[in-house]
Amino acid sequence: MIVYGKNVFSIIEEDPQTIEKIYIQKGIRDQKLVKRVQNLNKDIQFVPRPKLDQLAQDSHHNGICIQVQDIPTYDLDTLLNQAKNPGLLVALDGIQDPHNLGAILRTCDCVGVDGVILCKHNSVGLTPTAIKASTGAAYTIPVSTVTNLKNALVTCKEKGYWIVGSDMEQARDYRQGIYDVPVVLVIGSEGKGISSLVKKQCDYMVKLPMEGKISSLNASVACAVLLYQIHQNRHPL
Amino acid sequence: MIVYGKNVFSIIEEDPQTIEKIYIQKGIRDQKLVKRVQNLNKDIQFVPRPKLDQLAQDSHHNGICIQVQDIPTYDLDTLLNQAKNPGLLVALDGIQDPHNLGAILRTCDCVGVDGVILCKHNSVGLTPTAIKASTGAAYTIPVSTVTNLKNALVTCKEKGYWIVGSDMEQARDYRQGIYDVPVVLVIGSEGKGISSLVKKQCDYMVKLPMEGKISSLNASVACAVLLYQIHQNRHPL
Repeated sequence: MIVYGKNVFSIIEEDPQTIEKIYIQKGIRDQKLVKRVQNLNKDIQFVPRPKLDQLAQDSHHNGICIQVQDIPTYDLDTLLNQAKNPGLLVALDGIQDPHNLGAILRTCDCVGVDGVILCKHNSVGLTPTAIKASTGAAYTIPVSTVTNLKNALVTCKEKGYWIVGSDMEQARDYRQGIYDVPVVLVIGSEGKGISSLVKKQCDYMVKLPMEGKISSLNASVACAVLLYQIHQNRHPL
Repeated sequence: MIVYGKNVFSIIEEDPQTIEKIYIQKGIRDQKLVKRVQNLNKDIQFVPRPKLDQLAQDSHHNGICIQVQDIPTYDLDTLLNQAKNPGLLVALDGIQDPHNLGAILRTCDCVGVDGVILCKHNSVGLTPTAIKASTGAAYTIPVSTVTNLKNALVTCKEKGYWIVGSDMEQARDYRQGIYDVPVVLVIGSEGKGISSLVKKQCDYMVKLPMEGKISSLNASVACAVLLYQIHQNRHPL
């Protein structure tokens, strides 16, 4: 797999065994970056910009593409066993946009989330675009890819987690959630929200106040506001 | 200008005088949408999908492109005079990514922000991509485009606003801001944050806790968490 971008490289260089080859833009100005790349003693190739555009299938590569092994994912039990106490997980039910997935992973790193549960069939995966948008958080946040999100949530419940869905209907104000227990926060898809089967597994729903004409926030934005609310409940000033 | 997407159309159809022509995809399944378009009695053309891709310069148009007049912007005094009391404005210092601008406008609508101040020279403007990402909020949130953000902030101060910057350095925890006064929240650019000239105009900085390896949130995500914090301070349960 090819990943790209300076932020992503900064995370990968701390654990360079995943790197198979590094492509750098010919004549790149950032000589510090070139030195950091050379210090890794990996296979390096200097290539013209159009080659990087083609490798990344995106022009926002900052002059660096890295051929890497696939990012290891975890089974759900490992995710649950590694979590802090009380744990905080995010489950994504049908997120389609790799930029949203990336932004959510980035926020999860910043908030200190223990892991992300992705549904294999209906969600975007850890694609190069998602990894770029995560600014490298795809490497720092453990991800578990499950085939059946409902069953995964049942497993989480058995381990003492409360399942909290983000939804506008039959929901309590987001400040009235109970967050000092282990929590799985479920975020629905961009268009349709949380699917009905998954909704049934939620212990309760939370919603954000909406003061204007638009009826919903961007999925990654809603996820962030809810995660920081949980964070501030757990870490009062 | 061509704008596109169902969400954008839903906002525009409430004030259809801006519409010059509507392009719909030939054979589109959503007949309710077609009826809504026809009810507006505007110039309509059914076109094949590639034509819409070309008009929108994006494939995510949902089968509808609308030729519209430019979105009216406001001078700063109008923005300040129309604001609620205490007012809440967002100033963007160098946001480059139209998706970020769009997501910020969307959040501003949801939180009930009074207006957004954009800097003409260093920020992306109300482009079709930004309007699409705003899901129509570019039409609901008054925007003022200024040539000099520092001077605009001085004007806001003279009207009693406190200028609050989002930054990691020399910043207080975001829960320790004073939000029951008129506030301009300043969000810096994706790469460089707030410029030094603008920083000098800030009364204080606020920061979000960062628990992981990534050093910053996405600009639109940080903006949303801060805006909901201000909202919850002003609207306690």
